[in-house]
Amino acid sequence: MKPREIGITELVLRDAHQSLMATRMAMEDMVDACADIDAAGYWSVECWGGATYDACIRFLNEDPWERLRTFRELMPNSRLQMLLRGQNLLGYRHYEDGVVEKFVEKSAENGMDVFRVFDALNDPRNLAHAMQSVKKVGKHAQGTICYTVSPVHGTEDYVALAGRLLDMGADSIALKDMAALLKPQPAYDIVRAIKETYGEDVQINVHCHATTGVTQVSLMKAIEAGADVVDTAISSMSLGPGHNPTESVIEMLDGTPYTTTVDRTKLKPIRDHFAAVAPKYKKFMSAVTGVKTDIFQSQIPGGMLSNMESQLKAQGAGDRMDEVLLEVPNVRRDAGYPPLVTPSSQIVGTQAVFNVLMGKYKVMTGEFADLMLGYYGECPGDRDPEVVEMAKAQTKKEPITERPADLLAPEWDGLVEQTSALEGADTSEEDVLTMAMFPQVAPKFFKERHEGPRNVGMTEEQVEEERRKAAGLDKALHEPIKYTVTINGQSRSVSVEPA
Amino acid sequence: MKPREIGITELVLRDAHQSLMATRMAMEDMVDACADIDAAGYWSVECWGGATYDACIRFLNEDPWERLRTFRELMPNSRLQMLLRGQNLLGYRHYEDGVVEKFVEKSAENGMDVFRVFDALNDPRNLAHAMQSVKKVGKHAQGTICYTVSPVHGTEDYVALAGRLLDMGADSIALKDMAALLKPQPAYDIVRAIKETYGEDVQINVHCHATTGVTQVSLMKAIEAGADVVDTAISSMSLGPGHNPTESVIEMLDGTPYTTTVDRTKLKPIRDHFAAVAPKYKKFMSAVTGVKTDIFQSQIPGGMLSNMESQLKAQGAGDRMDEVLLEVPNVRRDAGYPPLVTPSSQIVGTQAVFNVLMGKYKVMTGEFADLMLGYYGECPGDRDPEVVEMAKAQTKKEPITERPADLLAPEWDGLVEQTSALEGADTSEEDVLTMAMFPQVAPKFFKERHEGPRNVGMTEEQVEEERRKAAGLDKALHEPIKYTVTINGQSRSVSVEPA
Repeated sequence: MKPREIGITELVLRDAHQSLMATRMAMEDMVDACADIDAAGYWSVECWGGATYDACIRFLNEDPWERLRTFRELMPNSRLQMLLRGQNLLGYRHYEDGVVEKFVEKSAENGMDVFRVFDALNDPRNLAHAMQSVKKVGKHAQGTICYTVSPVHGTEDYVALAGRLLDMGADSIALKDMAALLKPQPAYDIVRAIKETYGEDVQINVHCHATTGVTQVSLMKAIEAGADVVDTAISSMSLGPGHNPTESVIEMLDGTPYTTTVDRTKLKPIRDHFAAVAPKYKKFMSAVTGVKTDIFQSQIPGGMLSNMESQLKAQGAGDRMDEVLLEVPNVRRDAGYPPLVTPSSQIVGTQAVFNVLMGKYKVMTGEFADLMLGYYGECPGDRDPEVVEMAKAQTKKEPITERPADLLAPEWDGLVEQTSALEGADTSEEDVLTMAMFPQVAPKFFKERHEGPRNVGMTEEQVEEERRKAAGLDKALHEPIKYTVTINGQSRSVSVEPA
Repeated sequence: MKPREIGITELVLRDAHQSLMATRMAMEDMVDACADIDAAGYWSVECWGGATYDACIRFLNEDPWERLRTFRELMPNSRLQMLLRGQNLLGYRHYEDGVVEKFVEKSAENGMDVFRVFDALNDPRNLAHAMQSVKKVGKHAQGTICYTVSPVHGTEDYVALAGRLLDMGADSIALKDMAALLKPQPAYDIVRAIKETYGEDVQINVHCHATTGVTQVSLMKAIEAGADVVDTAISSMSLGPGHNPTESVIEMLDGTPYTTTVDRTKLKPIRDHFAAVAPKYKKFMSAVTGVKTDIFQSQIPGGMLSNMESQLKAQGAGDRMDEVLLEVPNVRRDAGYPPLVTPSSQIVGTQAVFNVLMGKYKVMTGEFADLMLGYYGECPGDRDPEVVEMAKAQTKKEPITERPADLLAPEWDGLVEQTSALEGADTSEEDVLTMAMFPQVAPKFFKERHEGPRNVGMTEEQVEEERRKAAGLDKALHEPIKYTVTINGQSRSVSVEPA
């Protein structure tokens, strides 16, 4: 029997450097790999998203739209893929539908092919308009399920969500495991159940991080269950808080009833390119290597943990972490078990800190109150009615049940006006979108854009210098320092070198 | 249905530090973890083998027998496990049967429970006497299959070898994948075929390295095929050229029809202990982190590659590596496809270098000629008769077909005599065995043994200093250096600090 072909989505241009080096990789460190990536036969190439956009304008003085156009030009044969936070686009608030539509339209126009659309709460209403916009421009709309573990997240709940996404016209379903919590058996069960419920021809893409060291096995079981595409990162930019290595996933399928569309001879130059580039970004690199399995017990992602720790320390209460760790599951339960992913992880974590320091819900953060009152959307489970009442009382706001974006008035014209007043902004709709999504950062970026991209990594010389230092070679290389010292009228030449 | 219980063999005390830090870990850095390891519920604890024995006397001035007795005392509830190179014991030549028997007897007496017996060529005759000796002292005899990939290593060949091992009375079969070549499908096929041929109650243990990033999936498929025990290393001493992480393998089984006998709450202190210890051995650590998949194409393990490179460079022929890489498969084929593992990897690699530099088999190494003439045992496939003739001609030796150890005369009494002449050797049979296996190193060790163990790792203070240096904190901490400089009779106080 002919093996079934599994597609591979390469993550190195987006999530890999986002997870491993704080999204700092400059475009100039990616361009030389693009021809090989384009020729390798990936199902898609993920290369754009919220953090890359943000980092471009915040740190790299790079126009993210220019980056997208460059990718399009350099990879004419590839499906370019992006991650889109539904109604939040790439920003941190809900946008009015007109802005969402405009963003999708411009992204498609600049070269995007596959839109992976998700919402942190898995509220389908927060995805609907973005999905519809993608369909409208004739691109690939990938509806996303954020995977988490809770009493209200059973296989049947994920199957129901997949149904909602398919009803929106999703061209494929992504199962997105941002915390590396997806174990092999649930991976198998969820993929199989979606296929059995909606048909074997429903395309399922599986995205896992590698953090906990179990998810490559989960990819295998997902494939056995019928998954069509899996996400990987080239080995030199893989593992740790990143993803499973592309080469290993491909090799793993040898002899099984599955094969891939990727030409493995093309992977070596891609690997070597990023192996050479990665050391430039050492100072941004995650200290975490190897695997971390604590999250299976604590349910608390690493980033959330360090966030809570620094909040406690700032309050001189660094010794109360254990209480906070016990409080997190309570807060999450009261809020209806949101997946713990940006921004819900921060919202839940901060409230747990507040509860420990000031008494249970004595003081709510504005964000937590909004979460309880429905302003982020519908939570997966029931919210605790008493806590909802407290949120109402503290904020004088009423709970809502409608889609949050329905409360917003058209805002495009206002955004155009704001943007056109900024120094260095051109009249393009791309600039308006940059301003819309990153109003704090955009003005400075527009002003400095003409200076051109900045590479925040080390130069090759600096990398070489670091390498020598690490190898203890720096001392031997430096010439002795020569002084002329004159004492009591007598000059002497003194040479000083490291002992 | 009650899940099937999978046993776990913990490798941290032997193969993990052998693979990750050149076997340098001192006993004092292990003792504090032993109580937790003993309580965790592992199927066995691997803690002894050739490289650990060698490192003990060569680098650590530790008596390996004392180490074994200490493990026995500290882990009274655990099966202690060792790796034994069949007729080679822990040394590099064949030993006469009496020495083999004595070694096994003393190992059992000092506390060993499980003997994993293997031969680099998979020649069952090289395992037979060691297996028989283990049975004789009533311990667990684990017959081992070295996994490799070649035209003469099909599933049926491994099944046949398993049969030979079971005929010897093997209490279990180990499938040993030292180069991380075992992909999921062959792992499944081999385990399933052995079970189907010899019965579901044949115990199968699977040992994989992690190097290529596919073998955790292979462990999963082996378990699905019926494997009873899998080998892992605690996460803080895992991955890279080491092994799959214990915690991840246990978590991976959640929800499947399999569970483990390990209490996962006991793993955290073991992990934390070795996370603290590992940085002390930084300078011995493998530079390889992440995964390396090239071996799937080249069939050449990393150690063999670097060995051949340095041989070529020594001959001023560093530019001929490509020719050597093409020659390796030819030499391996001519030699009847030995697995490429110590010592066969070095023997084949060096001969490939000779062939390229001096013409095909114009000059043979003594070791390669011996391999061709049967002095290492039977090779898996047919050896090339022409090359055998050339080996005969060059060495004036006749090929043998009998078991190599059959050519050896009893040697125990001679070894006793040699040992008793050495300064610092006591009259124990353990010392005679040390001398037998490491005649170059033992004399110096006996002489210096009274000085007690040496820890070649850094002290905690040095680790802290390194950490500060890496964080750029060393400069800030050092006081400025003050000089009194007198020029032309005038004294001035000068303070120098880093710019």
